[in-house]
Amino acid sequence: MTDRQRGIPSIERAEGEPADIAVDAVRAFTADVFEAAGMARADAETVAENFLWADSRGVDTHGVQRIPWYLKWFDQGICDPRAQMTVIRERPTLLSGDGHSGLGQLVATRFVERMVPKAKDSGLCLGTIRMSNDWGCGGWYPHLAASAGLAAIATTTSIPNIAPYGSRTRLFGNNPMAFAFPRREGPPILLDMALTPVALGKVLRAQAEGTELPAQWGFQDRDGSPTNDPATALGGIIPAIGGYKGTGLAMITNLLAGVLSGSAHSGNVEVGKRGQFFLVMDPDVVHPDGAEAYYDAVEDLVAQVRAVDVLPGQAVYLPGELESQQRQARLAAGRIRYPASVVDGLRKAAGRLGLPFTLTD
Amino acid sequence: MTDRQRGIPSIERAEGEPADIAVDAVRAFTADVFEAAGMARADAETVAENFLWADSRGVDTHGVQRIPWYLKWFDQGICDPRAQMTVIRERPTLLSGDGHSGLGQLVATRFVERMVPKAKDSGLCLGTIRMSNDWGCGGWYPHLAASAGLAAIATTTSIPNIAPYGSRTRLFGNNPMAFAFPRREGPPILLDMALTPVALGKVLRAQAEGTELPAQWGFQDRDGSPTNDPATALGGIIPAIGGYKGTGLAMITNLLAGVLSGSAHSGNVEVGKRGQFFLVMDPDVVHPDGAEAYYDAVEDLVAQVRAVDVLPGQAVYLPGELESQQRQARLAAGRIRYPASVVDGLRKAAGRLGLPFTLTD
Repeated sequence: MTDRQRGIPSIERAEGEPADIAVDAVRAFTADVFEAAGMARADAETVAENFLWADSRGVDTHGVQRIPWYLKWFDQGICDPRAQMTVIRERPTLLSGDGHSGLGQLVATRFVERMVPKAKDSGLCLGTIRMSNDWGCGGWYPHLAASAGLAAIATTTSIPNIAPYGSRTRLFGNNPMAFAFPRREGPPILLDMALTPVALGKVLRAQAEGTELPAQWGFQDRDGSPTNDPATALGGIIPAIGGYKGTGLAMITNLLAGVLSGSAHSGNVEVGKRGQFFLVMDPDVVHPDGAEAYYDAVEDLVAQVRAVDVLPGQAVYLPGELESQQRQARLAAGRIRYPASVVDGLRKAAGRLGLPFTLTD
Repeated sequence: MTDRQRGIPSIERAEGEPADIAVDAVRAFTADVFEAAGMARADAETVAENFLWADSRGVDTHGVQRIPWYLKWFDQGICDPRAQMTVIRERPTLLSGDGHSGLGQLVATRFVERMVPKAKDSGLCLGTIRMSNDWGCGGWYPHLAASAGLAAIATTTSIPNIAPYGSRTRLFGNNPMAFAFPRREGPPILLDMALTPVALGKVLRAQAEGTELPAQWGFQDRDGSPTNDPATALGGIIPAIGGYKGTGLAMITNLLAGVLSGSAHSGNVEVGKRGQFFLVMDPDVVHPDGAEAYYDAVEDLVAQVRAVDVLPGQAVYLPGELESQQRQARLAAGRIRYPASVVDGLRKAAGRLGLPFTLTD
């Protein structure tokens, strides 16, 4: 299988300078890019909102940095910017979808938007979508559910890079697991975690920026020896959290999102063939005493976390809290600082599509 | 909160010798113990089967080793051996239960037994049970579903011992996550993992046996310094897999099994107030192309795992495979070797209930 089929991103070495870019400008630019690439305006705006959500939360490996990848897929004809999610099977608490190899951020968002009212009507909804794509920032999907007062679990297949424990064959993706639990007010408790000690996007970024990996990230070469060279690490044995536990979760998420969805799975995951799994739950129905009892319990949990004995020099946050604070601060400032490699990618994207590039003016 | 309320087990220092005990004898003995403690015979046999399932699979920290704990709870009146699960709310794809502080292995088993036909009828079933207890070996519950051809996810609250990342206050249980996916033939793919690098039962066992903990287990004292003393480790900061990822999963499983079930949660989990969360799925309904396509994909996944490039000196197993092989071997041999501390506990249990103890004859 070639890199083209895998969709393995190659971030080119950075040219130019980092830049502070206005949030509104990068949002509009992103929508313009996807519209110019062939997407309907409303869909392009949905995708732009997803990217800005990631970037504003500091998960900027999962936002506009990826625009060049997707444009390449469009050019190669392996991802159709106009493709829409269709429903294969629908029951009151079940939805099966097909993404027709469209942009993941679009088809998976439309899929969850379809699940939310079903979960509201029926108390819960389980959904799987096949023939989807890289979905960007995994937390976005349970966040959509939480914005409607629903709790959610989501996972996806991804590029096979985690080896079954004891081997060096990359068979399962470093599949994120994302969970959101709404609170009575404010942002939800939102855990979005991949199964490696650090996001692979950080390794790609180190490669682009020409820096070494910290030893504690635990990357190994193909023979199992430690390495801090990003390229060697990306070609070696990628560690999973908790050893066989993390590699086991990689298999399980592959079964949930790849096998159960009817998508490609394991070593056959490639562009346009990812699968995703979602479970959306209405606390008002699932909690035996209803929504208010649920919210009381969540607030009690938060109060318990706020009251812990913090270690010297440390701070304690709820999952997603730091990201949510960062988003608030960045939206208030109206600007996001992007590294040189990202700015360069956006400039080239504009050039390729014949769009003006005024983000760094 | 006292140890009595927490239900923190104290394994006494071993007296006597390890012993090879006949499987049939220990199963009958276990049923006799629970019947003598007040449980109906059929329920006592269900519990005995659960314990032997754990012990035969080599998960012998979760089997008959725990009999003395439960007898103590019965004596203290904090767990009623006669209590049965009751249904709070039922919908085609939802079940809410109450365990009435009965033995976890009994009420959670009865709960899953009730979920299985619902998932068969409706394609899936989400269930939560409150006022349950320590459920023993977590893999048992998805295993029950997989035996009926269903895939399942399960998690439970447990004794609070994992601190929010950056603190030393034990707030969340080392909650197991268990997953089973049935295969066309033979035992399912079954991942059963707690959120610490090693099971706390192994630390308790080391304490009972008077041995030190290996450094790589990563336990810390209350100030965050490494320790290999079991008692210090049990009183210190217990590590979670992947740092903030594992502590985050501890919070999420607490939200699923504790908060959504309407049970106690976080620092308030104690004997008789645990909650459990289950999701049971029929692959024939969830997979858009039905059961045969699901089984084909699973067998393809297994074939891919069998074909990996194994590292020198290592072996690769499916999750649960080693345990399943061990069970087969132990059942074939008809005997299980128990350590001195466990044999001693069983002898004392027999004495307390006035039962003959002939297991080591």
